[in-house]
Amino acid sequence: MAQSLQTDPTKAVGQILDHYRSDPPGVRANLYRLLMTGRLAGTGKLVILPVDQGFEHGPARSFAVNPGGYDPAYHAQLAIDAGCNAYAAPYGFIHQVAHEYAGKIPLILKANNHDVLHDENDPAPAQTASVRAAVKMGCAAIGFTIYPGSAHWKNMYEQLRALAEEARENGLAVVVWSYPRGSGLSKEGETAVDVVAYAAQIAAQLGAHIIKVKLPTDHLEQEAAKKVYQSERIPIATLADRVRHVVQASFAGKRIVVFSGGGKKGEESMFEEARAIRDGGGHGSIIGRNSFQRPKADAIKFLHTVMDIYAGKID
Amino acid sequence: MAQSLQTDPTKAVGQILDHYRSDPPGVRANLYRLLMTGRLAGTGKLVILPVDQGFEHGPARSFAVNPGGYDPAYHAQLAIDAGCNAYAAPYGFIHQVAHEYAGKIPLILKANNHDVLHDENDPAPAQTASVRAAVKMGCAAIGFTIYPGSAHWKNMYEQLRALAEEARENGLAVVVWSYPRGSGLSKEGETAVDVVAYAAQIAAQLGAHIIKVKLPTDHLEQEAAKKVYQSERIPIATLADRVRHVVQASFAGKRIVVFSGGGKKGEESMFEEARAIRDGGGHGSIIGRNSFQRPKADAIKFLHTVMDIYAGKID
Amino acid sequence: MAQSLQTDPTKAVGQILDHYRSDPPGVRANLYRLLMTGRLAGTGKLVILPVDQGFEHGPARSFAVNPGGYDPAYHAQLAIDAGCNAYAAPYGFIHQVAHEYAGKIPLILKANNHDVLHDENDPAPAQTASVRAAVKMGCAAIGFTIYPGSAHWKNMYEQLRALAEEARENGLAVVVWSYPRGSGLSKEGETAVDVVAYAAQIAAQLGAHIIKVKLPTDHLEQEAAKKVYQSERIPIATLADRVRHVVQASFAGKRIVVFSGGGKKGEESMFEEARAIRDGGGHGSIIGRNSFQRPKADAIKFLHTVMDIYAGKID
Amino acid sequence: MAQSLQTDPTKAVGQILDHYRSDPPGVRANLYRLLMTGRLAGTGKLVILPVDQGFEHGPARSFAVNPGGYDPAYHAQLAIDAGCNAYAAPYGFIHQVAHEYAGKIPLILKANNHDVLHDENDPAPAQTASVRAAVKMGCAAIGFTIYPGSAHWKNMYEQLRALAEEARENGLAVVVWSYPRGSGLSKEGETAVDVVAYAAQIAAQLGAHIIKVKLPTDHLEQEAAKKVYQSERIPIATLADRVRHVVQASFAGKRIVVFSGGGKKGEESMFEEARAIRDGGGHGSIIGRNSFQRPKADAIKFLHTVMDIYAGKID
Amino acid sequence: MAQSLQTDPTKAVGQILDHYRSDPPGVRANLYRLLMTGRLAGTGKLVILPVDQGFEHGPARSFAVNPGGYDPAYHAQLAIDAGCNAYAAPYGFIHQVAHEYAGKIPLILKANNHDVLHDENDPAPAQTASVRAAVKMGCAAIGFTIYPGSAHWKNMYEQLRALAEEARENGLAVVVWSYPRGSGLSKEGETAVDVVAYAAQIAAQLGAHIIKVKLPTDHLEQEAAKKVYQSERIPIATLADRVRHVVQASFAGKRIVVFSGGGKKGEESMFEEARAIRDGGGHGSIIGRNSFQRPKADAIKFLHTVMDIYAGKID
Repeated sequence: MAQSLQTDPTKAVGQILDHYRSDPPGVRANLYRLLMTGRLAGTGKLVILPVDQGFEHGPARSFAVNPGGYDPAYHAQLAIDAGCNAYAAPYGFIHQVAHEYAGKIPLILKANNHDVLHDENDPAPAQTASVRAAVKMGCAAIGFTIYPGSAHWKNMYEQLRALAEEARENGLAVVVWSYPRGSGLSKEGETAVDVVAYAAQIAAQLGAHIIKVKLPTDHLEQEAAKKVYQSERIPIATLADRVRHVVQASFAGKRIVVFSGGGKKGEESMFEEARAIRDGGGHGSIIGRNSFQRPKADAIKFLHTVMDIYAGKID
Repeated sequence: MAQSLQTDPTKAVGQILDHYRSDPPGVRANLYRLLMTGRLAGTGKLVILPVDQGFEHGPARSFAVNPGGYDPAYHAQLAIDAGCNAYAAPYGFIHQVAHEYAGKIPLILKANNHDVLHDENDPAPAQTASVRAAVKMGCAAIGFTIYPGSAHWKNMYEQLRALAEEARENGLAVVVWSYPRGSGLSKEGETAVDVVAYAAQIAAQLGAHIIKVKLPTDHLEQEAAKKVYQSERIPIATLADRVRHVVQASFAGKRIVVFSGGGKKGEESMFEEARAIRDGGGHGSIIGRNSFQRPKADAIKFLHTVMDIYAGKID
Repeated sequence: MAQSLQTDPTKAVGQILDHYRSDPPGVRANLYRLLMTGRLAGTGKLVILPVDQGFEHGPARSFAVNPGGYDPAYHAQLAIDAGCNAYAAPYGFIHQVAHEYAGKIPLILKANNHDVLHDENDPAPAQTASVRAAVKMGCAAIGFTIYPGSAHWKNMYEQLRALAEEARENGLAVVVWSYPRGSGLSKEGETAVDVVAYAAQIAAQLGAHIIKVKLPTDHLEQEAAKKVYQSERIPIATLADRVRHVVQASFAGKRIVVFSGGGKKGEESMFEEARAIRDGGGHGSIIGRNSFQRPKADAIKFLHTVMDIYAGKID
Repeated sequence: MAQSLQTDPTKAVGQILDHYRSDPPGVRANLYRLLMTGRLAGTGKLVILPVDQGFEHGPARSFAVNPGGYDPAYHAQLAIDAGCNAYAAPYGFIHQVAHEYAGKIPLILKANNHDVLHDENDPAPAQTASVRAAVKMGCAAIGFTIYPGSAHWKNMYEQLRALAEEARENGLAVVVWSYPRGSGLSKEGETAVDVVAYAAQIAAQLGAHIIKVKLPTDHLEQEAAKKVYQSERIPIATLADRVRHVVQASFAGKRIVVFSGGGKKGEESMFEEARAIRDGGGHGSIIGRNSFQRPKADAIKFLHTVMDIYAGKID
Repeated sequence: MAQSLQTDPTKAVGQILDHYRSDPPGVRANLYRLLMTGRLAGTGKLVILPVDQGFEHGPARSFAVNPGGYDPAYHAQLAIDAGCNAYAAPYGFIHQVAHEYAGKIPLILKANNHDVLHDENDPAPAQTASVRAAVKMGCAAIGFTIYPGSAHWKNMYEQLRALAEEARENGLAVVVWSYPRGSGLSKEGETAVDVVAYAAQIAAQLGAHIIKVKLPTDHLEQEAAKKVYQSERIPIATLADRVRHVVQASFAGKRIVVFSGGGKKGEESMFEEARAIRDGGGHGSIIGRNSFQRPKADAIKFLHTVMDIYAGKID
């Protein structure tokens, strides 16, 4: 069932949109649509369903556990049925459903992807879709992954810069997956709180309207940063503290920041994370495997609980 | 003898075309032509004649056994005489016959090629033709090879993305040869069922209208995938099982998937493969060397038998 | 509080603009605005507030000590309140404030940046903004960093050439951060007076309207240069001497040269540097961390003192 | 003395042009001019004078033995006086004479070149001229060298593809020098008959209207090919056999194939080669050093004999 | 004092221009201006003042000995006062003076440059200016350096090709600095007579209107060339012989060839070189450091003597 758009932005949404006043009306319209769709419409919070694992991990690893997911239509419908704010996927998945679903739910075209058939220490995704394709398919936004810390950082940032500019010129919002990774970082450093906050800052500086990062640990990776965290006594003990810090690093909360759900795990730990994101001032979650790898009814129930946490309906 | 087009799509073809509703009418028209040409017209099945071996393996290895094949016209005529759905070849071969054959049979312009005069562990084909050339020569589609698993995967995917977009804008269908190969994979892994299914998924995500892969073995290459195949008990014991799995990995059968015939071999083993493709829900075959390396009459008889298997006329 | 523009250039400004007579009126207009804004308006001197450390060093290292700085608006307002000539920052920071601050103070869009998540001996920044974006956001100039001495010098110079030409065609001034660094130089050589003078010359030759370099030491890095400094007895003993030499290397003072403040340090040493810059004929300073890492009132007081030194109001 | 064009194609020329019916009229017009110019006009045979050795080997090695050749006009006039079908040279040589000679004799602009001041195991020529320049100078065709077997094969093929397409769109014919060379091949393999036939096929597939290869030896380089030559008993014992095989590999003789004369050698061996080319069905020769390194009268006499062999006037 | 243009070409100039009849009128007009400006106007000889050492060697090494040279205006005025044919410099130096000097003396915009802050065995300059900039600044020509023998030869030749074509389309002449250098050559080989002649040939083939090379020694670098110099007894004993040979290698003297002055040296050795250039048929000199590193009056006197040698007024 498609979501209807409310005709006036709520106060929460209005406050968020105020931070995007340098953007053209078309971009603001799409941010508005993202914030006014689904069960969280008007709350200023978002839960987005992303399904790029077929490309990133392979189809069997992604969909065999719940085989309805082999079909691209499954996910667009799941996003609607669960009351998500948007559905994000690579070109093929979006193309397969756009004629039917564009308009019913905001579509985010994931414009670059990486597979695991050729592993690299310093990853760089391939551009797999264009702004022009997003426009033709009625999308609300493009998505783009950067890997700060990779030896190929420069190419990724420059590709993002060009695509983001083209997106803005075409009235599309830009969602950046900012995932530190590569020879510049230790494995533990990929989710270190200094690094995740830095990754959020970089995405914001590069023009992301919505920033997606991983939930940070309390590890501190970079020596020069560590000293400042200690001397300034930046609170990073709890997950909510760290979320708050990442949101602060995203232009003092003037950019929308959502957190990824990561690999499939227990419901309760997901709910705890949602509470921490909410309490730290995060704007929500992007939840892929924890949604589409559950049976549909379970997934909807699970997502509704997450949404209710964000909406403050439950603790 | 040229094939006449039937004026209404059969039910089978209509069902297939329903999955391409996001595509512009020009692309759908060409998919329609591909599905409504030849002896399999209207069945939803395809047998395509591809002749790029002159470029890929050299002329003597390809044509000496049946020297009529040195002449590009031989193949276009063979495709028509055998009732194939389409004829695919590199620029030179298509250019040589287009003035005569365009319109008589759908032409697929193979837009990239590799030779064997310089071997590479991590192959990347050269772009050898453009969409503009395909349009000028009256082609119905372009063909493009990617080698998932090669260190050059990113360049190939990005080249395909750009060409596929240009093709769609010009009303051409896109056929992707997705052949895993390179330093990311073992030799055995190139046809492993997890890898072939993954390669099909990637081609679909990148915008292939028609996916061409090799027939998979029951080998499982990637550790993380292997676990899922085992835990989810994905059936891969028979060739039909594996075809079914690859078709499922191609957007739950919403993309046309054809399988390559491989090197020349005995007729009976080809017929067995055709039965497995049919029983597994595959859409047909691309058969090159097993067609044009036989005397013409033999080739036609052979191809007719394959087509009859697909059409369900014989078992 | 925004600065009002005086309607006639002072003599000092007129003399400076005389050196830019080959530039189109739009560029001269923006140079005029830069020189006629803030407390130093009309003096021919500039103090510019640059805030790219969030990108270049990370958000916590940059802003935790004075957390108001996490908010992009803080810096634009600080630049105005302190009476700076201009405010320079990367895309995200400028974009966040442009709708409100463009026109109130000249904005310099920093068009390339480097982070410290991937360290390189031979650095090359990523282009992070375009001239088109600068025009759309009402900027007066673009900023661009080159690292002479890096193995990637050629790419940086060529990128600057193209961007500078596009900037001039669009009436924007070009500010070049010329920071020697890389495998061609020793660490000490990065601020050697021969190298800094050379870096200023290169920026001028590449079309910089305003050149930003570091304050040079009396070290001499290159053997062939050292001989000339000694044989020609070029005075480099005092900081003012060295500033004078760098200004001379900038087309005999026909290009505007400002010096960077470097890491946070004591006020008195900053004032001494300002006196040396003034006495050596430099055109002013770009002061980032020493401004925004102090409490706002302190920063304003501090900057006013620097400006008064430049204006000759105090010694 | 300029050659006059006959107003009707002879039967031989008509048969050749029939193979280029997919080409636009402008290209066919230039092929017609090439085939209807000089002493061999109308025979379907060609002798072309190429002079790129000044670039490829250096001026003294090329012209000192017959110093008139330092002057670009010498060669254009020699080509006319000897009754050649066309004159081929790099940009500078063509540019120097075009204002005078364009129209008098078909000019082929060699669009890429290599010098010997920097040797490489895996050569790739530099593009030294454009289609636009060829059009402006009234040329009939562009020439382009590829080195199959070089590690840089992909770049060369892609550069050729783009230039050939642009040439066709501008009505110019495309002459491809296909010279196997590089780390994929042994030295002996560069002229192996399997490799030369393969190189001719590649040039044809890439869109060459005229293919230039070296005369092949009876060496077989590639194992997989060797087996086929032996099992299929492909005749390669005599030079005429091998020429016939290469012509067959060029789309069953539907592409014009000319052979290079190589380094300066005795007249009789050149005449023997011409007989073999003729008897094997080749379309002629490109003869550089054996022409311009002889005194002019000798060169003309020599070339006339070669032409008479092709014309069947002498044995 | 600006030079007035004579209204008719002298016979010497007319003969030179006859060799550029394939060029468009705009290019011929600028060659005419170059040949009809200054004390050598109408003689067919040129002395050009180039000042790119600030970029190529650094400002102090270039200008400290005669500090007026830090000011770009110094050089343009020196070129006029000494009666040079043209003034050549990088973007910044030309830009600084163009509004005042364009029209008074032909300006040559040096479009690529190299600094010495990062040394390379295989150098490649950065493009530092565009044809568009040259047109806007009223220049008569662009200058471009290639390093034959460098591993980067291909990129440089291709960059030159593109720029030269754009220059011609815009009516600008092309001056090529052809300086053999890099891993393909020994140090001694950089000025070997076979190599310098080859470098001149390459520049001519690539479309140079004016070729600038270094004065050659009698060293022979390349084995294959050495044999020909010896067997053909090419005279290379005297400097005049070698100049004559280089001029011959420049299309039998149909391209303008000037020789560089090299590092600062005694006047008499410069005069001897000028005599050899004149006697060998060279078209003149490009004299930088030997001009601007002398006191102005000395420089003018020195340059006048060189010009008088070229004009045949003194021996």
